[in-house]
Amino acid sequence: MGEKIRIGIVGYGNLGRGVEHAITQNADMTLVSVFSRRDPASVQTLNGVPVHPLANISEFKNDIDVLILCGGSKNDLPEQGPAMAALFNTVDSYDTHAKIPEYFDAVNQAAESGGNVALISVGWDPGLFSLNRLFGEAVLPQGATYTFWGKGLSQGHSDAVRRIAGVKGAVQYTIPVNDAVDQVRSGSLPTLSTRQKHTRECFVVLEAGADAAQVEQAILTMPDYFADYDTSVSFITEAELKRDHAAMPHGGFVIRSGKTGQGSTQVIEYSLKLESNPEFTSSVLVAYARAVFRLSGQGQTGARTVFDVAPGLLSPKMPAELRKELL
Amino acid sequence: MGEKIRIGIVGYGNLGRGVEHAITQNADMTLVSVFSRRDPASVQTLNGVPVHPLANISEFKNDIDVLILCGGSKNDLPEQGPAMAALFNTVDSYDTHAKIPEYFDAVNQAAESGGNVALISVGWDPGLFSLNRLFGEAVLPQGATYTFWGKGLSQGHSDAVRRIAGVKGAVQYTIPVNDAVDQVRSGSLPTLSTRQKHTRECFVVLEAGADAAQVEQAILTMPDYFADYDTSVSFITEAELKRDHAAMPHGGFVIRSGKTGQGSTQVIEYSLKLESNPEFTSSVLVAYARAVFRLSGQGQTGARTVFDVAPGLLSPKMPAELRKELL
Repeated sequence: MGEKIRIGIVGYGNLGRGVEHAITQNADMTLVSVFSRRDPASVQTLNGVPVHPLANISEFKNDIDVLILCGGSKNDLPEQGPAMAALFNTVDSYDTHAKIPEYFDAVNQAAESGGNVALISVGWDPGLFSLNRLFGEAVLPQGATYTFWGKGLSQGHSDAVRRIAGVKGAVQYTIPVNDAVDQVRSGSLPTLSTRQKHTRECFVVLEAGADAAQVEQAILTMPDYFADYDTSVSFITEAELKRDHAAMPHGGFVIRSGKTGQGSTQVIEYSLKLESNPEFTSSVLVAYARAVFRLSGQGQTGARTVFDVAPGLLSPKMPAELRKELL
Repeated sequence: MGEKIRIGIVGYGNLGRGVEHAITQNADMTLVSVFSRRDPASVQTLNGVPVHPLANISEFKNDIDVLILCGGSKNDLPEQGPAMAALFNTVDSYDTHAKIPEYFDAVNQAAESGGNVALISVGWDPGLFSLNRLFGEAVLPQGATYTFWGKGLSQGHSDAVRRIAGVKGAVQYTIPVNDAVDQVRSGSLPTLSTRQKHTRECFVVLEAGADAAQVEQAILTMPDYFADYDTSVSFITEAELKRDHAAMPHGGFVIRSGKTGQGSTQVIEYSLKLESNPEFTSSVLVAYARAVFRLSGQGQTGARTVFDVAPGLLSPKMPAELRKELL
């Protein structure tokens, strides 16, 4: 197998810990170091891997083949993505869909200047779901694609509820509407409104003295996040929140339905059922880190997305092995 | 969009007709000609595309960008695959899994000598199912992959029944066992025997005077095809065969189930529900013909499989469009 691929992790939250775990499942990789903005002495890694200050990362330029960026899309990656791509080959899970084109351009410029490969927006959505949207419309050009999310905990929507005055803690679950999923699976190509596709379920812990009716109203009428959905709000205790809502399950479906020939109905469905959303995203990041290492080894430079990566590059197996075992 | 991609079809059965249909759904492609070993005057194409004798195909070297080979894996492709790859860029649906490595080598040599790209074993299995087996084990290295086929008409098994003495006509359906599928979907990683995964259902028309019991016994004990399965045999009339069993539905599932982190269960499922198996395979072939055209345009040569093709090459959309719309 030759030398192991040397990985670095930037940011050590749920995603960073998931990456550390995932690397232990891949015999051709080794984790060199975690980099954090926190005091390294305050960060304890799962397997005792050293932690260094992010500010010193350029000293590790010759020790790391691929850097996996585990920061958030809102505050971390817009700055870290380009900065790190100028120094290292990178993979990240940038997931602000509307801003992907400008993020791609910024990262591309930095990666080209540094002679590195930077793979952006890796995970399951964007990521594996995006691939299935692409395969679906390429194979069945006459048809429609539907993406459903859940049942799962949405970090962004949970955060939105937490920002409301009077809310001490909260989680939000996104739930696909079964009837809508069934219609799509039947191949009937329904037109579905936002409200018809998903419902939203909030579990909220109030601050002492907060007005429940007022908090509920603030949730139900919040534009973009809740106003266009059928949303339910339940008030629970802090103990219940910790006991019943600590897990981070998620998942969903991408369904492409189309017609071929004289009108044959064809349905393609890709679905994920995840007990841990961050651990799964981490596992996808690690598989794609292998592809980045290989693309860089071919002399490629610049930003890339999952659309640009030949699937065989994700596997530790050699092409002849893949043809024999998996084709 | 520039010049259209010029396609040729070799072999005009169900698959060839499906390709002709699929090309009409792709605005960036045009069908130049069908090539057949039959007398061209006896072949009527759906859209009036000209038919030429296969023997004269080398005269069309400058008129065709990609040739789609629509012959069978048993008798046609072992010879046609290498012969055509020496002259043209090709795509085929070679599906004899056990012989793929040797077929790849033969086609690779021919394609290299001719300076062409030859993409082999394209369709849904091998093809899209193979890709999902690869993605599954790359993303979840600790786990197991399960492939189920059906409910669908199996051409190979139907042919095997038809070869039995006393059989005038027959169809065979492969049916996944619901209980096995449910176990796999639960993430319990069951060990399943061949018999536990699929059942087989045969509908048989007897020749006049044939012995039903003898035919049934010949089916049930046929090694590889039926002996390892729970198989049912029903005798029907020729009229019933034509009326109830003319369609060619198929489909199936690839399920990868694995563990991450401290033991979170993650399940990935890819499923197809196809009203027409040959039309769907044709649609996959046509999308990959676009990728072959682009790979050849990059100056690549030699045999390839779906594992070697970056997904973005399948789409008529430009990379920036794909990032904006589908990522």
